[in-house]
Amino acid sequence: MASSSTGEAGPPAVVLLSGGLDSTTTLAVAANRGFDVHALTVAYGQSHGQELTAARAVARSQGVRRHLELELDLRAIGGSALTDDIPVPKDRSEQEIGQGIPVTYVPARNTILLSLALAWAETLGALDLFLGVSSVDYSGYPDCRPGFVRAFEALAQEATRQGTQGARFRVHAPLMELTKAATIELGLSLGVDYSLTWTCYSPAPSGRSCGRCDACRLRLQGFAALGRRDPLEYEQGGGR
Amino acid sequence: MASSSTGEAGPPAVVLLSGGLDSTTTLAVAANRGFDVHALTVAYGQSHGQELTAARAVARSQGVRRHLELELDLRAIGGSALTDDIPVPKDRSEQEIGQGIPVTYVPARNTILLSLALAWAETLGALDLFLGVSSVDYSGYPDCRPGFVRAFEALAQEATRQGTQGARFRVHAPLMELTKAATIELGLSLGVDYSLTWTCYSPAPSGRSCGRCDACRLRLQGFAALGRRDPLEYEQGGGR
Repeated sequence: MASSSTGEAGPPAVVLLSGGLDSTTTLAVAANRGFDVHALTVAYGQSHGQELTAARAVARSQGVRRHLELELDLRAIGGSALTDDIPVPKDRSEQEIGQGIPVTYVPARNTILLSLALAWAETLGALDLFLGVSSVDYSGYPDCRPGFVRAFEALAQEATRQGTQGARFRVHAPLMELTKAATIELGLSLGVDYSLTWTCYSPAPSGRSCGRCDACRLRLQGFAALGRRDPLEYEQGGGR
Repeated sequence: MASSSTGEAGPPAVVLLSGGLDSTTTLAVAANRGFDVHALTVAYGQSHGQELTAARAVARSQGVRRHLELELDLRAIGGSALTDDIPVPKDRSEQEIGQGIPVTYVPARNTILLSLALAWAETLGALDLFLGVSSVDYSGYPDCRPGFVRAFEALAQEATRQGTQGARFRVHAPLMELTKAATIELGLSLGVDYSLTWTCYSPAPSGRSCGRCDACRLRLQGFAALGRRDPLEYEQGGGR
């Protein structure tokens, strides 16, 4: 659960880590800014376990101070293709992906995740939370926008011991204005090993990424735009 | 898990139900206002199971549309006498109870609970959430104040599909300005059976309420102020 960080410890920060490309890059940004990184992974009933395996591998490889896993089964609440029996869409164009709120939206997910991060932050005495959201690629998710992040900061001030005593909480969303390609470029510049991450919403029976769901397509397009090869293996016939 | 409500169904509402005196009264208020009540109980690693048993009994007796239980073990986060090995204070005066933030404060608890209620509300198409907080008896808890409730409403607007499409979320906190005695009076007027509820932070080995923790003391004082007998059994030597 815990592994030592290298170098001098800066102020503590809680980083939400799903094991995906975005949260992994965000974790590297937090470490690069000198924070003493505490990674929080929530197993919320995603339909596959690869994300959790990836989160553990990323936390280990980046030498976080502590990696905490919480279980919270959101399948009882449902309402999303990620936690329910709704099919994950495949082979959608970039334009289609950008329109409306996709069925893979999990109701109030980032609100729940940030609440849990806030609870841990209070216990640690941390004031900095990191969330790997971007308003560029998935404009349809309401809880991936700057207004959401600011509203959560305002809530944290009112909700906590430290906040009501005058300390300022900050929710860092370093990828907010970045395209997938820019995110990957940033991560590579910080030494992120993307072979450890997991992105696919709908893995093939072989266990490989499908290459056809929205998440795979955005990831593959991001690597392609940089002229880089994605180190993940994709199902034959998937990818591009 | 589900039981039919009686009469015509009003708009759906999600009521956070711990099984305690306050949330039980709040549930009765929601039903009395004509909402189609969906009760949400979160097992967050409280040190005893009596609360959950009480929540089930209350939900059954009040005929809620559905009672959903979620498990989320906050003991991994710790930081509270309710989820950690910190002793629960006993025999404190009303004045002592009113000062500062007690060790029974669970970091970001109400933020977490409201986030989960919000997720369920999104799935149900509900815009009304009910929370049994009071700023009177426990002035020390930051997440029991009107400013917290307003900040969460603002967050809900930004965080959700419905909110970003213009629907208005409301967090009802009908006990906010009520003393414990006024809460009990309200509940009795609505026919609440307080023998089903559970309040004690630190039950005796017999399974009875201790009568000495802050929660028991506030409850007993509330009944005493009304000249009513608390229908719960207390440990010999506890109570007043």
